[in-house]
Amino acid sequence: MPRPAAIEPTPIGRHHALLTEFRRAFKAGPPPLLALEGPRVLSEAIRAGVRLDQVLFSRTGLAQLGPKLLPQFSKHTELAVADDAAFAAAMDAAHPQGVAALAQFAASPLAAAFGSGAPAPLVLAAAGLQDPGNLGTLIRAADAFGATGVVALADTASPFNPKCVRASAGSLFHLPVASKVPAADLVAACRARGVRVVAAAARADLAPEAAQFEGPTCLLLGQEASGVPRELLRAADAAVAIPMAREIDSLNAGLAGAILLYEAARQRRR
Amino acid sequence: MPRPAAIEPTPIGRHHALLTEFRRAFKAGPPPLLALEGPRVLSEAIRAGVRLDQVLFSRTGLAQLGPKLLPQFSKHTELAVADDAAFAAAMDAAHPQGVAALAQFAASPLAAAFGSGAPAPLVLAAAGLQDPGNLGTLIRAADAFGATGVVALADTASPFNPKCVRASAGSLFHLPVASKVPAADLVAACRARGVRVVAAAARADLAPEAAQFEGPTCLLLGQEASGVPRELLRAADAAVAIPMAREIDSLNAGLAGAILLYEAARQRRR
Repeated sequence: MPRPAAIEPTPIGRHHALLTEFRRAFKAGPPPLLALEGPRVLSEAIRAGVRLDQVLFSRTGLAQLGPKLLPQFSKHTELAVADDAAFAAAMDAAHPQGVAALAQFAASPLAAAFGSGAPAPLVLAAAGLQDPGNLGTLIRAADAFGATGVVALADTASPFNPKCVRASAGSLFHLPVASKVPAADLVAACRARGVRVVAAAARADLAPEAAQFEGPTCLLLGQEASGVPRELLRAADAAVAIPMAREIDSLNAGLAGAILLYEAARQRRR
Repeated sequence: MPRPAAIEPTPIGRHHALLTEFRRAFKAGPPPLLALEGPRVLSEAIRAGVRLDQVLFSRTGLAQLGPKLLPQFSKHTELAVADDAAFAAAMDAAHPQGVAALAQFAASPLAAAFGSGAPAPLVLAAAGLQDPGNLGTLIRAADAFGATGVVALADTASPFNPKCVRASAGSLFHLPVASKVPAADLVAACRARGVRVVAAAARADLAPEAAQFEGPTCLLLGQEASGVPRELLRAADAAVAIPMAREIDSLNAGLAGAILLYEAARQRRR
């Protein structure tokens, strides 16, 4: 039940404990406490039914965003406003956008990433991807191209890292995202469900358009420089490489993943 | 002619004018002075024949990268080494990689972006793209997928911005990149050459696989939120949209551009 827009956030001083809590959440960002920043991500979270525990505005942010955002919060959300400098100091973004929130949010179980029937599973799995921005980009692309879920393996950045949350631009709330999954568990889950594991590689004989992404597929992506770890590459059913006109080292994992997901969606539309 | 590896960089103090010069170049980065950072970009520049005027190592960077890099510099390059803290203070990267350079580098003329005959022109043009990191990503994707050149329109970030140079990971040196081109000049150049202008849009009837990218094409990309400016969209011959499973605002310009370039390369391979 939205509260009436008349209810105002509580002004807090620059030494208020809530600022420390935000600062700590944006630094470490461990689940289940998720740190969100910016009106777009907040709106996406609200729309997806994520429960926001605390919302913090800057003075300027409240003036600009309050009229649109305030009516969206449930009465369980604690609202506060701090002066611009104190707000900015509690954020990790270079250009904070005037509003931030803390929310309870749990990772999905691995099984959820395979969806529930139709369409055929299209799982995006990240192996050894250290850059949270790239992981966020991948989650956004997975959402855009109809993947059934995302799996961050145990050696990958946390999908709940604030940088990943920001880069995913709300997509984190729209599809199941499993975290810290042991590689062996993912491979076993794919085998059990008849899901083909296709690893992205810098060199492989298979081009994306020949990769038969129509069937149940788990797309395995590594880090830019090192690619998918060798043991995992061996466990894959196929390796696919994006053909390039010029021999460049490799595209970054976000870009390569988005292209492969686009290609999978294209094949699934036929 | 590579100099013998025995020649050592000159140690400079923490108040040396060269540090100020690097700091200024990394801050402003105006052409023709290009500020490069990291061994990978430096190697790409050397391989592409870019003339490096000054190279600056950190102490740690020299120990780690010197043996491999030193033999690659021409005798016209001034070499210096500073202590790690002074080096880091002169860079704008969060994690500078121990070596940086200043180089003379000029933008290409607009005509160069259309290539010279075969293959048919595939020009990537950025309109109103403010994020230099996204522009760098696009230049890298254009290089990877065989575009004949890149055109940054007058209202777009500079391709010579250090953040763009870093994101392009050396691709800036591998294909013609024109900068500050008035939109009307680009449209006129396309008309004169029979090049079809295809604008990327959030909504359009044309899907990428039906866009006939085999012919002479100029792919026009805007900024994530606002897209291609309306006047320019009107001047385009066609608009193309990447179909998405879920209605998300839009992919960022780097991602959308990479996908369209991949699709163009795929069609051109057939």
